[in-house]
Amino acid sequence: MPSPDLHRPDLFAQLLQGNRRALARTITLLESRKPEHQEQARALLQQLLPYTGKALRIGISGTPGAGKSTFIEAFGLHLIQQNLKVAVLTIDPSSGVSGGSILADKTRMEKLSSRPEAFIRPSPSAGVLGGVALHTREVMLACEAAGFEVILIETVGVGQSETLVSSLTDVFLMLTLPNAGDDLQAVKRGILELVDLVLINKTDLLPEKANLTQVQLESAFRLQKTAAKVLQISALQGKGIAQVWEHLKLWREKHAADLLHKRQDQQAAWFEEHLKQLVWLHFQAQVNPQKREALRQQARTGTMDPLNAAHLLLEDTHGEKHFPEDH
Amino acid sequence: MPSPDLHRPDLFAQLLQGNRRALARTITLLESRKPEHQEQARALLQQLLPYTGKALRIGISGTPGAGKSTFIEAFGLHLIQQNLKVAVLTIDPSSGVSGGSILADKTRMEKLSSRPEAFIRPSPSAGVLGGVALHTREVMLACEAAGFEVILIETVGVGQSETLVSSLTDVFLMLTLPNAGDDLQAVKRGILELVDLVLINKTDLLPEKANLTQVQLESAFRLQKTAAKVLQISALQGKGIAQVWEHLKLWREKHAADLLHKRQDQQAAWFEEHLKQLVWLHFQAQVNPQKREALRQQARTGTMDPLNAAHLLLEDTHGEKHFPEDH
Repeated sequence: MPSPDLHRPDLFAQLLQGNRRALARTITLLESRKPEHQEQARALLQQLLPYTGKALRIGISGTPGAGKSTFIEAFGLHLIQQNLKVAVLTIDPSSGVSGGSILADKTRMEKLSSRPEAFIRPSPSAGVLGGVALHTREVMLACEAAGFEVILIETVGVGQSETLVSSLTDVFLMLTLPNAGDDLQAVKRGILELVDLVLINKTDLLPEKANLTQVQLESAFRLQKTAAKVLQISALQGKGIAQVWEHLKLWREKHAADLLHKRQDQQAAWFEEHLKQLVWLHFQAQVNPQKREALRQQARTGTMDPLNAAHLLLEDTHGEKHFPEDH
Repeated sequence: MPSPDLHRPDLFAQLLQGNRRALARTITLLESRKPEHQEQARALLQQLLPYTGKALRIGISGTPGAGKSTFIEAFGLHLIQQNLKVAVLTIDPSSGVSGGSILADKTRMEKLSSRPEAFIRPSPSAGVLGGVALHTREVMLACEAAGFEVILIETVGVGQSETLVSSLTDVFLMLTLPNAGDDLQAVKRGILELVDLVLINKTDLLPEKANLTQVQLESAFRLQKTAAKVLQISALQGKGIAQVWEHLKLWREKHAADLLHKRQDQQAAWFEEHLKQLVWLHFQAQVNPQKREALRQQARTGTMDPLNAAHLLLEDTHGEKHFPEDH
């Protein structure tokens, strides 16, 4: 594979034309750790900026077994029928203990991945959750510049990933099951505030339970005074998929002004996130690795408290005591 | 209230004697944001270090409604009966959207909080989850120096907090209910690997379901080849509480060598965490606030990509291009 930085003017033009190879190369460039690639990636991002922002950005969450892949496949194929181009990106927070597991997204969504109107991008290899999301944001912008009109960002797993996905997207969907005991718990525990639309999937299996879950969810939303909606679908049978898209189109129209502000707030928040990451990378490039390792060992063996060891390393790296008085 | 930095030599001596006011003052000092307090706090931490590490550090997690407060109260009172001093610390990750909610811990555990052998410390006000945990580590060390022999660190809420609590503790307990459908889901989703002991609480209400849940959990642990154990308790009736402590004492004996390595790994990891936080604080003290705000606005309004805006601010703060080639 050629270096992604070759033919950059060409890359930009081809990307705007929706060339898939150009998109793949752009993503390689955006995710590269080489400093000269990063510089090019930043220049390219700035060039792309006027061509981004036109897609509807949809976050999708759901407990394992709720049928996310089946829904994304059915929903994606429906969007293609409407002459829309759809990109599917995945954020996999992966367990802190067992390390990352990249799901075989193309196997999960076989029909969708074979369509030229769809672009499916599994999450990059494990790393800091925030770091993964930073790249997902850049990949999303590249997809928009390449003409993709609906971006689906799927979260795999639990916890903070929902907050991260909602910080990237316009609207947030949650898939749940007809017997949603545990999902209701999850909804109550903070995710409720992020969700714009709940889809009760596999309703054909347990129609009465689905109705009960819908009533419970709607009353929970009323209590929280959120305008979130609940729909029943069966992704496997294709039921309710068209209604989801109709609902989201209306939602976008109705929230056009809010959406502008929401995206501005997101951009300001991402500025802070990028700043944090860059500051940390900068420090790591500056620090003396031998001193870092020596102090790490002192912290490890308990001869120095970790906070003091970290402080000494910072002072050593910056050559002086830097903390000003703030009173 | 007098400034916590007064009479520091005295503070240290009083803390080692287990003086509660000295402990409260030490914690105020550790949590202070004033640079001169932080410097004193670091010096004090280093002084305390030889007097720390003797307690058993127990992490406690559980879904809402599993009866964590009732268990901690019953367990804490049992420990006091064994002539042990017990400290209860809480980590509250709080929702990213709605901000922090400090639970009234002293109301939750009324009997325990009235005992002089117990020290209950609610989590500090909301902030970065990592930051909260950093302070919890320091507070834990202060409690150990003050002679507390068992430290209970309780996580409130879901997600990353479990990983954080297990990075502070020797042994990790999870409370669950006899009909543990949703808890089992949680256990399967990554928490399983962290848990050393599951307590099925409120077993008197649903004894048959409790047996079933125990069998399910034990087979899940066998599948994962973890040595975690499952016990049935009723915290409200005081059933099984003594057995929990007996089990933990045996556990500590059996894992003495592993525990030493585990704590060393934790200390090395906390060195990295502290370093990250200090590097970020250092940058914030150096940056030009006007330039930061101007670039933030450019990112917000979409005239500059957030990554580029962050990069420009970093270059401006450090006066040059710093990133070296790494190839």
